Amino acid sequence: MESGEEGPRRRPGGRSARVQAAAYDAVIALVQERGYEALSLAAIAERAGVHESSLYRRWGTREQLLLDAISSRAAREVPIPDTGALRSDLIELLRLVSTFLQTAEGQALVRTGVATAHIPAFRTFHQEYWQQRHIGLHTLFQRAIERGELAPETDCQLLLETLIGVFYVRAFLLAEPLPEILPERVVDLILPGAQGR
Amino acid sequence: MESGEEGPRRRPGGRSARVQAAAYDAVIALVQERGYEALSLAAIAERAGVHESSLYRRWGTREQLLLDAISSRAAREVPIPDTGALRSDLIELLRLVSTFLQTAEGQALVRTGVATAHIPAFRTFHQEYWQQRHIGLHTLFQRAIERGELAPETDCQLLLETLIGVFYVRAFLLAEPLPEILPERVVDLILPGAQGR
Repeated sequence: MESGEEGPRRRPGGRSARVQAAAYDAVIALVQERGYEALSLAAIAERAGVHESSLYRRWGTREQLLLDAISSRAAREVPIPDTGALRSDLIELLRLVSTFLQTAEGQALVRTGVATAHIPAFRTFHQEYWQQRHIGLHTLFQRAIERGELAPETDCQLLLETLIGVFYVRAFLLAEPLPEILPERVVDLILPGAQGR
Repeated sequence: MESGEEGPRRRPGGRSARVQAAAYDAVIALVQERGYEALSLAAIAERAGVHESSLYRRWGTREQLLLDAISSRAAREVPIPDTGALRSDLIELLRLVSTFLQTAEGQALVRTGVATAHIPAFRTFHQEYWQQRHIGLHTLFQRAIERGELAPETDCQLLLETLIGVFYVRAFLLAEPLPEILPERVVDLILPGAQGR
């Protein structure tokens, strides 16, 4: 412990982290229970047990708070794999995606995404979210290019969207289960074309 | 024209077809404007200018009427191509899907699908809808197998879901445009793996 002033201002990081965790849990719980229409900074503050003014100062809008909460949850639930080979990286990534999409929380967040992506107030935040995710996944593909597993000119975004698309179609449009073997089968269907074989 | 009784009962097919067309247009317009929550046979009847009892006798529930309307619209907007080769069949299919997903009507119907697929009252209808679509698409893949373009043991459902998945992810999760070249690029990414090359 470092010396310094005593009192409640001493560990702003600790308090700030607690406010953040409570706000993220609250916004995600509210979206799950009532949908994004019911979201407001006041409702989130009440659920989180924090002052609305704290949320307002930190995030400004419900959209920004929701974006941060979803980004943080996605980064935790679907971290970027680094297994040493492209095929196993992608299978692991799709396993994490598949598991997350089968949780009540994952389903609520995706349904919220689909319900809001075309709404102007949410649209910027969607784009920011996917840009952040693509930056994270870029390193996965970059490593594969460096190992000679993908050509440098590969359209990695198309590859990624094609890999995950089938999971979204099954889970959200068909409401069908996602078998455990699906990640491996999807990767083995798409990788030959991506590798130009 | 056959001889027979005169009067309003003479051409039940004509009247029935008009009621059906009006009911389909009404249910799709209502879903587009207000979402599926606002749907009721009474609201659809009012919009269509027909008796609620006619809708009730013919469809029984709003879910069945919505299913029939969407199936009919999908069959009209995305007919099953038959170009003589698998690659061009799939590119044409994805072009039709892509075009439909970019219409206000297509977007409203898919959002309704995602919002309702997990709701028990709609679930059976979703499964019926996709079963019908798969039967139609089965002939496309069957012709490819007969021409020797696909192995008989190909998992055509996985192939189909992977092909269309990227369009749904782009249009509904990322809210990104669907470039004209996308159908061709997706088919050329996936077909090598599907053909075991």
